[in-house]
Formats: sequence, structure tokens, C-alpha cells
Amino acid sequence: MNENTLTDLLQQVKGGEIAIDQALELLRRLPFEVLDSARLDHHRALRTGLPEVVFGEHKTVDQLIEILDTLLRTDNVVLATRISEEKAAQVRTRLDGLTYHPEARVLSGNQHLAPIGIGRGTVVIVSAGTSDFPVAEEARITLRSYGHRVVAIHDVGVAGIHRILAHAQQLQQATVVIVVAGMEGALPSVVAGMTAAPVIGVPTSIGYGTGAGGFSALLGMLNSCSPGLAVVNIDNGFGAACMAAAINRKG
Amino acid sequence: MNENTLTDLLQQVKGGEIAIDQALELLRRLPFEVLDSARLDHHRALRTGLPEVVFGEHKTVDQLIEILDTLLRTDNVVLATRISEEKAAQVRTRLDGLTYHPEARVLSGNQHLAPIGIGRGTVVIVSAGTSDFPVAEEARITLRSYGHRVVAIHDVGVAGIHRILAHAQQLQQATVVIVVAGMEGALPSVVAGMTAAPVIGVPTSIGYGTGAGGFSALLGMLNSCSPGLAVVNIDNGFGAACMAAAINRKG
Amino acid sequence: MNENTLTDLLQQVKGGEIAIDQALELLRRLPFEVLDSARLDHHRALRTGLPEVVFGEHKTVDQLIEILDTLLRTDNVVLATRISEEKAAQVRTRLDGLTYHPEARVLSGNQHLAPIGIGRGTVVIVSAGTSDFPVAEEARITLRSYGHRVVAIHDVGVAGIHRILAHAQQLQQATVVIVVAGMEGALPSVVAGMTAAPVIGVPTSIGYGTGAGGFSALLGMLNSCSPGLAVVNIDNGFGAACMAAAINRKG
Amino acid sequence: MNENTLTDLLQQVKGGEIAIDQALELLRRLPFEVLDSARLDHHRALRTGLPEVVFGEHKTVDQLIEILDTLLRTDNVVLATRISEEKAAQVRTRLDGLTYHPEARVLSGNQHLAPIGIGRGTVVIVSAGTSDFPVAEEARITLRSYGHRVVAIHDVGVAGIHRILAHAQQLQQATVVIVVAGMEGALPSVVAGMTAAPVIGVPTSIGYGTGAGGFSALLGMLNSCSPGLAVVNIDNGFGAACMAAAINRKG
Amino acid sequence: MNENTLTDLLQQVKGGEIAIDQALELLRRLPFEVLDSARLDHHRALRTGLPEVVFGEHKTVDQLIEILDTLLRTDNVVLATRISEEKAAQVRTRLDGLTYHPEARVLSGNQHLAPIGIGRGTVVIVSAGTSDFPVAEEARITLRSYGHRVVAIHDVGVAGIHRILAHAQQLQQATVVIVVAGMEGALPSVVAGMTAAPVIGVPTSIGYGTGAGGFSALLGMLNSCSPGLAVVNIDNGFGAACMAAAINRKG
Amino acid sequence: MNENTLTDLLQQVKGGEIAIDQALELLRRLPFEVLDSARLDHHRALRTGLPEVVFGEHKTVDQLIEILDTLLRTDNVVLATRISEEKAAQVRTRLDGLTYHPEARVLSGNQHLAPIGIGRGTVVIVSAGTSDFPVAEEARITLRSYGHRVVAIHDVGVAGIHRILAHAQQLQQATVVIVVAGMEGALPSVVAGMTAAPVIGVPTSIGYGTGAGGFSALLGMLNSCSPGLAVVNIDNGFGAACMAAAINRKG
Amino acid sequence: MNENTLTDLLQQVKGGEIAIDQALELLRRLPFEVLDSARLDHHRALRTGLPEVVFGEHKTVDQLIEILDTLLRTDNVVLATRISEEKAAQVRTRLDGLTYHPEARVLSGNQHLAPIGIGRGTVVIVSAGTSDFPVAEEARITLRSYGHRVVAIHDVGVAGIHRILAHAQQLQQATVVIVVAGMEGALPSVVAGMTAAPVIGVPTSIGYGTGAGGFSALLGMLNSCSPGLAVVNIDNGFGAACMAAAINRKG
Amino acid sequence: MNENTLTDLLQQVKGGEIAIDQALELLRRLPFEVLDSARLDHHRALRTGLPEVVFGEHKTVDQLIEILDTLLRTDNVVLATRISEEKAAQVRTRLDGLTYHPEARVLSGNQHLAPIGIGRGTVVIVSAGTSDFPVAEEARITLRSYGHRVVAIHDVGVAGIHRILAHAQQLQQATVVIVVAGMEGALPSVVAGMTAAPVIGVPTSIGYGTGAGGFSALLGMLNSCSPGLAVVNIDNGFGAACMAAAINRKG
Repeated sequence: MNENTLTDLLQQVKGGEIAIDQALELLRRLPFEVLDSARLDHHRALRTGLPEVVFGEHKTVDQLIEILDTLLRTDNVVLATRISEEKAAQVRTRLDGLTYHPEARVLSGNQHLAPIGIGRGTVVIVSAGTSDFPVAEEARITLRSYGHRVVAIHDVGVAGIHRILAHAQQLQQATVVIVVAGMEGALPSVVAGMTAAPVIGVPTSIGYGTGAGGFSALLGMLNSCSPGLAVVNIDNGFGAACMAAAINRKG
Repeated sequence: MNENTLTDLLQQVKGGEIAIDQALELLRRLPFEVLDSARLDHHRALRTGLPEVVFGEHKTVDQLIEILDTLLRTDNVVLATRISEEKAAQVRTRLDGLTYHPEARVLSGNQHLAPIGIGRGTVVIVSAGTSDFPVAEEARITLRSYGHRVVAIHDVGVAGIHRILAHAQQLQQATVVIVVAGMEGALPSVVAGMTAAPVIGVPTSIGYGTGAGGFSALLGMLNSCSPGLAVVNIDNGFGAACMAAAINRKG
Repeated sequence: MNENTLTDLLQQVKGGEIAIDQALELLRRLPFEVLDSARLDHHRALRTGLPEVVFGEHKTVDQLIEILDTLLRTDNVVLATRISEEKAAQVRTRLDGLTYHPEARVLSGNQHLAPIGIGRGTVVIVSAGTSDFPVAEEARITLRSYGHRVVAIHDVGVAGIHRILAHAQQLQQATVVIVVAGMEGALPSVVAGMTAAPVIGVPTSIGYGTGAGGFSALLGMLNSCSPGLAVVNIDNGFGAACMAAAINRKG
Repeated sequence: MNENTLTDLLQQVKGGEIAIDQALELLRRLPFEVLDSARLDHHRALRTGLPEVVFGEHKTVDQLIEILDTLLRTDNVVLATRISEEKAAQVRTRLDGLTYHPEARVLSGNQHLAPIGIGRGTVVIVSAGTSDFPVAEEARITLRSYGHRVVAIHDVGVAGIHRILAHAQQLQQATVVIVVAGMEGALPSVVAGMTAAPVIGVPTSIGYGTGAGGFSALLGMLNSCSPGLAVVNIDNGFGAACMAAAINRKG
Repeated sequence: MNENTLTDLLQQVKGGEIAIDQALELLRRLPFEVLDSARLDHHRALRTGLPEVVFGEHKTVDQLIEILDTLLRTDNVVLATRISEEKAAQVRTRLDGLTYHPEARVLSGNQHLAPIGIGRGTVVIVSAGTSDFPVAEEARITLRSYGHRVVAIHDVGVAGIHRILAHAQQLQQATVVIVVAGMEGALPSVVAGMTAAPVIGVPTSIGYGTGAGGFSALLGMLNSCSPGLAVVNIDNGFGAACMAAAINRKG
Repeated sequence: MNENTLTDLLQQVKGGEIAIDQALELLRRLPFEVLDSARLDHHRALRTGLPEVVFGEHKTVDQLIEILDTLLRTDNVVLATRISEEKAAQVRTRLDGLTYHPEARVLSGNQHLAPIGIGRGTVVIVSAGTSDFPVAEEARITLRSYGHRVVAIHDVGVAGIHRILAHAQQLQQATVVIVVAGMEGALPSVVAGMTAAPVIGVPTSIGYGTGAGGFSALLGMLNSCSPGLAVVNIDNGFGAACMAAAINRKG
Repeated sequence: MNENTLTDLLQQVKGGEIAIDQALELLRRLPFEVLDSARLDHHRALRTGLPEVVFGEHKTVDQLIEILDTLLRTDNVVLATRISEEKAAQVRTRLDGLTYHPEARVLSGNQHLAPIGIGRGTVVIVSAGTSDFPVAEEARITLRSYGHRVVAIHDVGVAGIHRILAHAQQLQQATVVIVVAGMEGALPSVVAGMTAAPVIGVPTSIGYGTGAGGFSALLGMLNSCSPGLAVVNIDNGFGAACMAAAINRKG
Repeated sequence: MNENTLTDLLQQVKGGEIAIDQALELLRRLPFEVLDSARLDHHRALRTGLPEVVFGEHKTVDQLIEILDTLLRTDNVVLATRISEEKAAQVRTRLDGLTYHPEARVLSGNQHLAPIGIGRGTVVIVSAGTSDFPVAEEARITLRSYGHRVVAIHDVGVAGIHRILAHAQQLQQATVVIVVAGMEGALPSVVAGMTAAPVIGVPTSIGYGTGAGGFSALLGMLNSCSPGLAVVNIDNGFGAACMAAAINRKG
């Protein structure tokens, strides 16, 4: 039974599946839970296929603990991104059951509840330089928590074009490819020209001068002359993983 | 047999499938054809799963005719985007077998060669306002030429939120959704929160003042708080169609 | 008697209410007081209906103490915004009668002098995400100090559109709505489509990559396709409160 | 009976006011009408208090005629903005009952249906220079069509500060003030310091060099040090009128 | 005798004033001195009427000491701008004869050598808010060191327009006016409309959101509709002082 | 008798020079005249030393004729800037007594009323390239109409540095120098290093690519390392002339 | 004898080669010629190794004819860039001896005076797409006029990476490579990774949306991770040719 | 034997120089080495003439040590740029054989392996102000490590134009000139007008206000009116050195 749209609700009332009072009650409570610091959206996994992930950048340690504590009691994998090493340490002192991934700056929990190998195929993650590694890791850990098969290829930037050419076969066999690159952001163009799989570009804020902040890489990817390429926000490894998961899901 | 990478070439030489001289010859000629005005890439369809499409914006009528004439002799569907009404008329006067789609500003040919219903499912194209229609049409005609099933929903912008809510079921059944929106570019965020399918946002240059040029819509989509959303360049209906085709392809 | 314009002054001279010398003296002294660090504008409350509020961001502790000490001796509520926790502690050590609101980063005093329930109706403050809370709080405390009725609704961003839909009635009964949102800044568009009340959008600097600094949210709000929406500067909860107070005042 | 939210719909079903089938039917048809080129939102006037206005900038003459023809048959005032002189002439040749306002670039119809003097008080529109006049006129005609009392004051820019000072009394008696200014956009700051009424700033694209496009005026208004001021998009006289109407409405 | 241009040099050779070898020697040594960290330009005072001032922002303590030590041995007033409190303390520990002005962030020396009252008249410095004070002070101390008469008026921003109106006479009697303002940068427009003296606008980086960094104030000043106004870089109190000194010099 | 400030007005009332009713009347009428299209500011010449000049860019031919007709009846020189060749022809067909300067795009009238040689000295106008000539001409004609002595030096850009060096003496003898330059805008820096006179930089929109629009030249001038330099808006030859006139005026 | 610096001049005076009066005369006349519309710099070829080229974009037909007429009488090759087809036709009607290159938008003359094969080696010009051809042509014709050997390779963008790989040998044998690319501007990075020759990147304004104007391509090239790459302004084929000529010259 | 392109590889196979299995093996291993944190490209020196240099900005101490340890075992000079003083100290504690250059922020090793005087001539490095010194040093040390002859001229900015004129001869004798400048970035224009050598402009982030970050200097250089000038990214002393080395190499 799919219960997450208002139209469906009325259908159920009509079909006698639920009473009007129940419908009104459902509408009043709606599928989320009100905490002090956040309104958790438990039906989200049903609706979008993706469990809610906590964006930790602007949250305090107290807010994180309250939200994560609630999520750990559900039967979903728990993930919090953009968690600094200090915050992670403080949270883990006061809350059990969380693992910290320092490169990816991610806290995870309930990993035993993660599905395994659920997608149609393999997600390949490619990164251009050593400094793009953390963003690629954020994407990899997110996808793994969601149960997808992932292969990662690092340090294959376009300044030595033979490095990415050596991986042609892996790129052609992927269901979807994530390409993480800073500086001029040229790698996704090259990759999208080598494979029939959809390519998700992730510009990174690696660079200096006019490249600082990642705008150069972002513009490079948006203006690619290769077809089959779409882009997420700068440093948004998590967003790329969600898009890849949506592409790779069965059905 | 997949023959489009250099690694493969050497494998074939090793396996005795082709002689070294043939390999060298292949490498010298490479899988493209040199015209006066463009180097056509016939192997592209094999490599990326997408036939080459002519980007007409900056090309002269003479250049268009030379390229399209060559493409019409191949066994691929022919598509040229960003063709103004005047250019289209001039090209069609001198070259047979082309259809002009004025809303989408597209010239097409060899449509009898188009595959039918090849993808895993249906691509849903959503547009926010009347003025976003041409970009949505560019995407729809491209996808149709590639053989994908497409459903289009128009004029469902967020200022009247009930309009998009009425289409919840269609969005949930799509394999991939393209959302075309100008102004504040908020519609993709709402759509991505309503479906498990991957969503491709296409910002349009519809707007004025700070919205002129489409940057506001682009930034809105890049900064969406909804997961499962990636973005292509402003007004890039063709690029969105290519990404959708890559996502929807079988295998 | 309204005495705050120069035209009025001449009228009073003509009517014999005040002597010319008094008028000249008034003009010379003018309705403000010169401190070392700031020229306090005591007639401002009469002229604009709003007591002067100290913008603390760039002021030193010494400047704050001198200004607040003077304001506390008047019969107006006292408010200082953008006060860090450290500055607040230092000021309160040396000056009595001030309360610190850490979430809102506001110092207040003379709250017993605040009017109660003065406006035409209720101001509803809506915020999109947990991280937008401080800006919403700055607006709420300012409005409360000015004597307005306020209702706050938090964490109802557009990625889960049902969350804001559940508050339709409150939005329709408001005299004015403040909507605080970062990221893509889409929530004000949706809200403005749901109510006949004027909506004030407050973009926040919550975000990263292209969203850092709040420009994406600002542009999103300026380019809204919903009517009845105007915008204040990024993170300017205080400015939104002043606008709301001006809208909600009687007469 | 207020019927425009989904919650209300369910309440009516519960209360026996309408049958479930009717509710479903309502939901299916939803309060808009599907034309070829636009989905007209007839319930909008009930929901937001403002009749739908056609944004004409990017619409063709054919699209305009189809939409306006439908709207003229309703019992609402009809308004289309951003209509060039040529387009207006072509539309009026083929459609009766429309008046063109060349300065404001507005087409209006059904003006006999306009309410008269409906608001709480008077809207004062102030413009800085001769060239800002068209934007001020777009605001004035929109407000008049909605039935509000309007007073307009022109050519009172800050370079001759005595010009605006001479209007102090009018500004103080307004319910809401719209200030239209290009160049440095300083006039709204000065006006907001002279009145207790809420001020809506409208930056215009009047200027050259760094002022071209209106960004300078927009930034000036967003960064005003005067309280009680909010801003709409560049040249958006219509948007300012909607905000003013929302502020001035009774209740 | 004016000796600082190459043309003059040849003239002197022709007139027999100096021998060719002397001319070549002069050209070789040229009117500057080579230190490890800077090439001091002793003839600058003759050529531009202004002694060299050290821009301290990016210089190390060692570089500052080497340069200031050399300058203190000349018979010019010594000035170093953009010196933090820490740097100033370190320099003064190791070098005698320097005074630190903390508000202006300026180090000065040889003040007994400063001329007194040298210009044609008085320079009036106006600042809009408390936070603009440091930039105004940098200008005032620079002008005083150069020997000009200065009057400063603070905290007269446009939100309370009567405050600046009260100073009309001082503005009309100035030889040149410097106006320092952040936020919307509107004050120079108002001042330039009140006086026949040339006005130099100095935008400051005071502000937040879109005003952060001072671009809003800069654009406001560049786009002023008042004549007789020119602008220097953001926070450039020193540059404004140099321009004012050049305007105020006799001859 | 100086009558243009409100303070003065009260002084005159006090001194018995005018009656209160006269003062009120004066205040009511204020020193400007209300036309249909513009509020002419006749006291401006007294207040700022500069007659009002019509900014023609956004004005229609009808507006220009109405304003210029009124101004021609005063005893001031008449000037209208940014007048295209077509507009000028249309205006001159219907209004006598105007001269058109096509290079400068200026209409002038009442030139027999212009003062002669009124300033303290000579204004030198320097331009970098052939294409900067029109902006320099706008400045020259404005200054000449105001009665100032002007010398113009053209085509002395920094790519051939000896060209400007040859004019060292003229630069050193100027009272004020205007430097007009597009592209990289480096010439004002060089000139300001060669003279003790104040230098006004005018960036022009000459250039292409990143230089298009004049931002590169503007930034170059704002960031000059030479003291004694201030800047006006891009292409603002008129503004530079007003600043130069204010600097060069006696007293 | 090298005579183009002022230091040299004095040396010659000292050595008795020329009299002082001659030196002064030389300095007064300086090595340029004053026309009405431009100061021609005849010594430029001696000083910088490159004859003066007329930048035609902002020049009128009359200005072009005056300048080109003078240049044609010298013994240098004559070149004018950015000449539209219409302007070229008008100039050629009134002036003999000029050839127009429509693709490159260049007028040339005195080509029989061009040197042949003067450089150290060959300049290779690479362009990414059909639309980049005009900029590449501007570079090629400029270099040919200067006497350099040029090879051009077109339509080898990174979306089909094998296309540029096929030219590896040509790139490795070049003395200098010019790479012309719009869109994402990735080709120079790939080329610079394939050759030891210095690479000059020329971004073009080919593109749309965020790529319009060429900023995306410019940023991509500036942020390249490949060493041995420098960049000229957008569409500046002429500038790239000058840089290449300077690199390729002997000595 | 040149072995670094894929085409060459096939040629060798054909010529019998290597067996197919060897070719496949070569292709599989490819000319780089896979470490945990970086893929070192040992053939780069052969392919581009430049040894790989480590970009240290975003690398951790552990990553630096792993990479540098490997590089020190090769027979190439080792260079790491953008290394802070703290990082350098930590690396040198754990790894022998490295020298730190604090001004240039460079770590170098294997300097005994550096070639001596390998280029065609001398590279002249010019910097405008004291604060540009570090970027100039990064370029100088890189070039010296590569074996090129370098001359450096410091503190010759355009505000005192005679300073750079005194170095005319050195500039004319250079094979290539690097010009490092912040602020308005005008020095490269002047230098390029004084020499026939190619000039590489390096904008620096020295400045404040609108000059902060180096964009002003970058735009100044891109828009230079002097021919023979190309630009690298802001603060990219290393990139300028690579370009200079490529220009200066023999052959």
C-alpha cells in the first residue's frame, strides 16, 4: 500500500480502507516527527527511496546528538555528513553506535541494517587529483550505506590523459559514473565521451586564485561539450551519491 | 565486438583479429570523417550510445548543409538543435528530408530510422511556466528521436503548489524526470521530494532583472535541499535529454 | 503634536507655538544626542514608529556599553543585534539589566516597557531548516520586543512539501508572514502562493559551494513567480521584523 | 465557505458537505483550467486575494490572445504586463475590450469590474527620476485595477534632497509606500527614515556603466540602514504593487 | 629647479647645467634607493607633492622596520598604514620615534616636521556610522600629517536625514569633502547635492549579506546622480586623503 | 544672499528679512519647477556651482524637447548628454538654438551665456586610445560650457610609454587631470605618478572579452598604487567634468 | 644600432653620435606620428618586434581609412582586425591594396612585404569546434603576415578524445602551440599534457547559458592542472598570435 | 627512442621493437606508479620536458611525506610548492634531504641533480611591489631547479615609471620575461611595450577592497593593449615558471 500522497489518501477513504477521521488524523500528524531541533521525515525513505541523512555543517553538537539518537532507534542506516573531527569526537563520547570516517567527514550508524548490492549494476567513482579524494569518499560511503556496489578510481586527471584512458573498460561497464574534479573541471567531459553510462560531475573547491571555491570547475562541467553529463553543487559528494543511487535503483 | 578504445585495438592485434598495419591504419584514419567544417564522429553512437547531434547556434547555413547532408546518408536519426526559423527555411530549401520543429527550434531527419520504446521505462518532462515550453520541447523531441517513451506535463510552477501535487503518481512511476524551470527554479526541489526517480533540472533563461539569463534558476537547482537531483546548463534541453537517455537505457 | 519635520517646525513658528529662537535652537540641536561613539536618534520612534536598535556586529565592547547605557535610561525597550556570546558576557559584566538570547545573538533590556499585542494581527515566522533557526529567532525576539503577536513554524522546507501544507490555515490567518530560508530559497514562493498575507523573504547564508553566502537564496526569492512577496538582505532577521512591524501596525 | 486547501476539502467530506466522489473529482480537476498555452488558476483570487495577471514578456501574440480571451470571460479585472507597443496593437486588432497603457506597457480589460477604494488606506508611489516613470506606472495601474487608492510623486531623487523633504506629510500618512529608483538606489533609505509606513523598494535598470541592469540600485536597497524596507526584483513594478495590495488589504 | 623628468634632464645638459656624465650617472642611480625589501622613492615628494607612505598590510615586521628606519632619517613626515596592533607593538619595541593610532591603524613619525595649515582651505571628513570611523580616521591622520586643516563630522547617515542637513554650512564652506560610508553608500550623493566643493566618496566594507565587502557601497557611489563626486577603493581612507591633499594644495 | 538651505531660511525669518508666510510659501513651492516629465532644479547652480544638465539616455524626444525648451529660457548654459544622432536631429527640427556635437553625443544651447576662463587653472584631459575619444570629448565640451580652460592630449596609452612621458610638463602644470582609458585602465596610475595635480580616472567600455563593459578598466583604476587618483563611473565623461570643475573653481 | 630607449639616446649624445639638439628634437617629436585619429608608433616594430596592428572594433570607417592609408605607405605589412564585412567593403571602396579575410574578420595589405619563415620553428594552431574557427583564423593570418610557419588542426575537442591523440606527433614537434576552445575550455589542458612546447590558450565566447561570453572557458584554462600553459583574453586570436610570434622569434 | 605516445607504441610493435605482450603490459602498467595518495607520472619529464612538481596546498603532511619520499629516490630534482612553514618543519623532521625556502613556500630536494644553464637565454623576473616578492620567488626557485638562468628585478611598479625604464636593456635582452604584479596589474602592459621578448603576466592577490583576491590585476593583464603578453592564474608563480621554461628550452 502506497500511502504517501494526498491523492492516495482520498482514494483510500473512498475505497473504505480508512475512515475519514483517520485520514484527518493522518493529515494532522503527517508523516514526520517534531523534535526540538528538527522535524524528522520518516516516510521519506518510502517516498524518495532514500533514508534521511543529517547535514551536519551548521548543526551544533547538541542538535546532532538529539537527531542521531532518534534516528539510531529506527530501522534505517544512519548517516551524518560534513562532521568535523572535533564534533565527531564530542558526539561519539555521548552517543554509542556511531563510526567516524575522517577522510569523508561522515558519521555512520546502524550499518548492519544496510542492504547489500541492491542496484542494477556498479557505480564507478572517478577523482582527478589527490585533493579531490575526500569528496569522492563522501560519495562512496553514502552509496555503500545505501547498499550499492561501488568502484573507485583516483588521481586520473586530464594533464596525463593516458591515466584515464587505461580505465576505459571499467567506465563502459558502469551503470552510472560519478566524476569528482577541481581546478578546470575537465575530467567529466573526457569521461562522458568514453562511456554510454550517465555521468554525474562533482566540482570541488580545490584550487586557488580564480579557481578558489570551485566555480571554475562547476562552469567547466556545466559547459561540457560531451552529452550524458549532469552536475551537482560544489563539493556535494553526498548529492552525487543520491543521484547515482536513484539512477542505479531497480525498477 | 566492442572496437572503440585503443586498448581494445591492441587486444585485437594480439588476438590476431586484425593485422598491425590495419591497426595503424585505423589509428591514422580514426573513427571520424573530416569535412571542411566539422569532423564527424561516426563511432560516437557505439561509444556513448548517442548519435551525434549538430549544435546549430553558431553555424552558418553553408556549414549546416554540408554537415546535415553527410549525416542524412548515414543510417542514424539526424538532429540539429538551436536552429532559427530563418536558418531552417534556408537549409530546407536546399536539402530534402528534414522536418522543422519551430517551438523546439530543432531540425530532424531520418526519423523512420528512430528506434521505438527502447528504454527501461518512461521519461517524464515537467515544465514550470508557458515560457519554459521551448526548452522542454527540445528535450522531448530529442528523446523521441532516440526512441524513448516520453510524457510531458506543462505549466505546474510552485506558485500554485496544488498543480504539481495532482501529478504525484506520474512522477512516482517515471524512470527519470526532467524538470524545466526559470525564475527562482524551485520546481525541481519540490519534484525531487515527491519521487524516487532521478531528477534532472534544466534552468531556463526566462526572467528579468536579477533573473535574466537563468543564473537565479541555476543556483536554485544546484542548492536544492532535495536529494536525487542533478543539473545541466541553462536552456540545455538537449543535454537533459541525453542524460535522461543515458539513465533510461537498458543494461 | 507631531514635531519631527522641518515643515512642522515652521508651522509652529507661524502659529506662535514656539519662538523663532527656539526653532533655531531646535534645528541646531536637532533631535539627537551626540555621544563619543554614536549619535542617538531619540525622535526615531516618533518618526518611524520603531525604537533605535543597536547593530552590534562591528562595534567594540566599549562602544556597546556607552550606547546601551544611554538607551537603558530612556523609556524605550533596548535591543542590540549581532552580539557574539563573548561580547555579550563582557557587556553584561559591566552593565546591569540586559538579557542575552544566544540563539538569536541579541541583547535586550527594559523589556518591562515593551507594549503587548499592539498590532493588527499575528505575524507568522516560518523557517525552512534547522540551521535557519537563529535568523528566525532574531526576527521573533525583535517583534516581541516591539509588542507584536508572533507564531513560529520551523523546519518545513520544500523537500518535503507536505510539511508546509499542514500549516495552510495558520498562513491564511496571518497579517504578515516572514519566511526564512537558505539553500535554494524556494519556500517563500510556495508560502506566497498559499496566503493572501504579504510575505517577507529572508535569505540565509546557510549552504555551501554556490550556495555559500546566501546569494542563491536571495536570487531565488527575488525571482519568485508568486505575487505578494518582498525580500530583505541575507540573514537580516531584524530587518524582516521591522518590515513586519510596519505592516502590522494599526492605522 | 473557504474551499481552497486540501485540508478543508477533507473537513468538508467529514462534515458531509460534499461526497467523496466530489472531493476526488475536485482534486482531479483541481481549481485551474488547461488551455494550450497556460493553465489558468481561477481560484487564485480566493487563495491569495489577487487575480492572476499575465506576464507578457516572453509570450507570443497567439498565446496572449488565447489567455486574455479566456480571462475576459471571467468576472475579474484583466491585466497583462510587459507588453510592447507592437504586441499590444496586434492583440487589440484581434481582441476587443482591452486598453493599452503605453508608459506602463500594460494591457487592461474588464476595468468596470474593478473594486473601488478597497484597502485600509492610501498607497504612495515615489519615483526618483524621469526615467523611472514607466516602472512606477506599472505599479500604479496594477494597484488601481485591484481597487486601491494611489498617490504618485515623481522626480524627487536624493541629489536635491529638499524635493523629497517637501512631501514628508504625504509619506507619513500613507499605509504603504513604494519607492522606485535606479542609479544608486538611495531614495528608499531616505524615505524609510521619514515614515512609519512599510516601504517597498523597486530598483530600476536605469543607469549605465556599473549601474547598467539595476544591480547597483538593488544592492543599495538591500543594504539600507533604514528599518521598515523590503525589496522586489529589478523593474518589478507589478510585484511591488502586489506586495502593497497585500499590505493594504483589510483584515 | 625641477629635476624629476627625463626631458628636464636633457634640457639641463643642453643648457650646460650638468655634464653628460652626470646625466648618465643620474639616470643610472635614478632618484630612488634600493633596500633589501623596497626601493624608496625620495623624489616622489617633489614629483607628486606627497611623501611616500608605507602600505603595511602585507609587510612583515622586519620589512617594516627596515623601511621605517630609513624613512625616519629623512626630513619627511613618516606614515605607515594598515598596521595591526600587534605589528605596531613589535615595531615600536625595536624602533624609536613612532606613534601608533589604534583606531586608524596608522604608525606615524617625524611629526614635528609636518607642515601646518598648508592648503587652500579646509577638508571636511564626513562618516555615516560608528563603524565607518576607522576609515575616516585613516584619512584624517594622513591629511594632518601632510599639514592640511581637517574637520570631521561623524554618524550622520541617511536613515535620519536631518542629521546631515544640520551641517549644511560646514559642507558649503569646505574646499573638499571626504564622505565615508558603508551599507548602501548613499551619503555621498546627498552631500554632493548640498555643496559646491568636490566630494570624494570612500565606500567601506561595513555591512553583511550582500553588503559584505563594500561592493554595494562602492556601486552606490559610482552610480550617484549627484555631480561633483568621485570615488576611491573600498576602505581606502589613505587614498581619499591623498586625493583631498592634491585638490587642496595651493597653486 | 545665500538662500538655498533650510537653516538659512529660518535665519532670514529671524532677521526679519522675510515673513513667516513667505518662508512657508518658499518651502511649499521649493526651488524647483514641476513639468510633466521632470522637476527642474533652478537653485542647483547656486547650491552646487553647476547648472543642471539633462541626462538624455533614457528620455524620449518629447521629454527632451519639453525640458530643453524650459531650460533655454533661463540664463544658464544648456547641456544634454547621451543624445544619439537621430534623437538630436529630431529635437533640433522642433527646437531652435541647439548645437549637436556628434563625437561627444552632446546637445548644447545658450553657449553665449557661458563664462570664460573662470577656474583657478587648466584642466588637462588625457585619453589612452582612439576609441576613448568620445568620452574625453563629453568631458571637454562640458568643461568648456562651464567656462573652464581645457587642454586635451589623445592616444597616449601605456603600450608605448614614451608617448605620455613626452607630456610630463603639461601634466605637472595642470590644476586637475582627467584620464580616460579602457582596456586595462593603466594610464591613470602612470599619470598620477607624474604630477602633483589631482587625477580623475574615467574607465571606458572599450574592450572585448573580459574587458567588455569597462569593469577591467574600472578595477584597474580603483586599485591603482599611485596616490592622488579618484574614479568616476564607466564612460562617465560628464561626471569627470563636474568633479574637475568643482576642483578647479576658485574659492 | 638600437635607438629606441631614452637611455640609449643619452649614450649616443655622450658618444658624440648625435648632438644634444638632435636628441631634444628626437624626444620632442618622439617616434610616433600624430594623425587626427591616432598616434602611429613607427618604432614599435623595432622595439617589440611586431608591426602595429589596427584594432578595428570601435573605429569608424573614416578613422580606419585615415590610419590604413598612412600605414600602407610604410614598408610594413598592414593588418586591421575585428573588421565587419560591411566596414571592410566600405573601406575597400575608398582605399586600394587591401584584402579582406571574412572568416577571420581581418583586412590585410602590403603582404608582399611580409617576411617568410622567419621563426625558430612551426606554430601549431589547434581549435576545439567548428565555431572556434574564426578566432583560430585571426591567429593564423596574423602569424602568416608576420612571416611565421603555421599548421592548423581543427575540430578536435575533448568529447572525442581520440581526435586530438591522433595529432600527438605534430604537437610534440611544434615550437609553440595555440589552442582555441570555447565551452568548458578543457582542450588546452589535454594538449599541454601532450607536448613540451609552450601552449597559449585562447578561450572563445562560443557557448550559451553559463558559458556565454567565454568566462567558463577562460576560467577552465587559467585553472588548468597542466604546466606550460598561459592564457590570453577571450576571442583574442590576435593576441595569441603576437605571443606565439614573440616565442618563436630567433634570438 | 621516444616511447610516450600510444601511436609510438604501435609503431614499435609494427617495427618489431617490442612484442605485443610487452605493449599490452606497458599499456596496463602505463608510465605511472600508484601510491596510496597519488599516481606519480614518471614519464612526464620525457613527455612535457618538466619533472612532476607536488602541489602542496591541500595535501596533508602524511601525503606529502609518502609522495616526496618516492620522488627523492628518482633521479629528478624534487619540488613541492605551497608548503606552509609548519608543514615544512613537520615533513623535514621525518624526511631527510629537503631544503625549505620560506619566502617562496617551496620545499626542494635532489638539487645536485639539477641541470645548469640549459635554456636558450635568460629569464627575467620583474615584480611590482614588496608584497609580490613571494610569488616571484616561487617562479625563480622553480626555474633554477629546472636549470634555467634567471635575473630578478624587484619593486619597480608603475607609480614611479622611471624605475622600470631604468631596466630597459635587461628587458630587451631577455628570452622571456615574467612580470608579477598585484593591485591594478599595469606593469606587464608597460613591460610588454618595452621588449620583443614574450611576457608572462602573473597577477597576485595583493590588494584590498575591490583588489582583494587578485581579480583586478588579472583583468588588467588580460585586457592589456600591449602585444606579446599572456597570463597565468592568480599567484601562480610556479605556472609562470613552467611556461617560461617551455619557452626558453632549446629546440
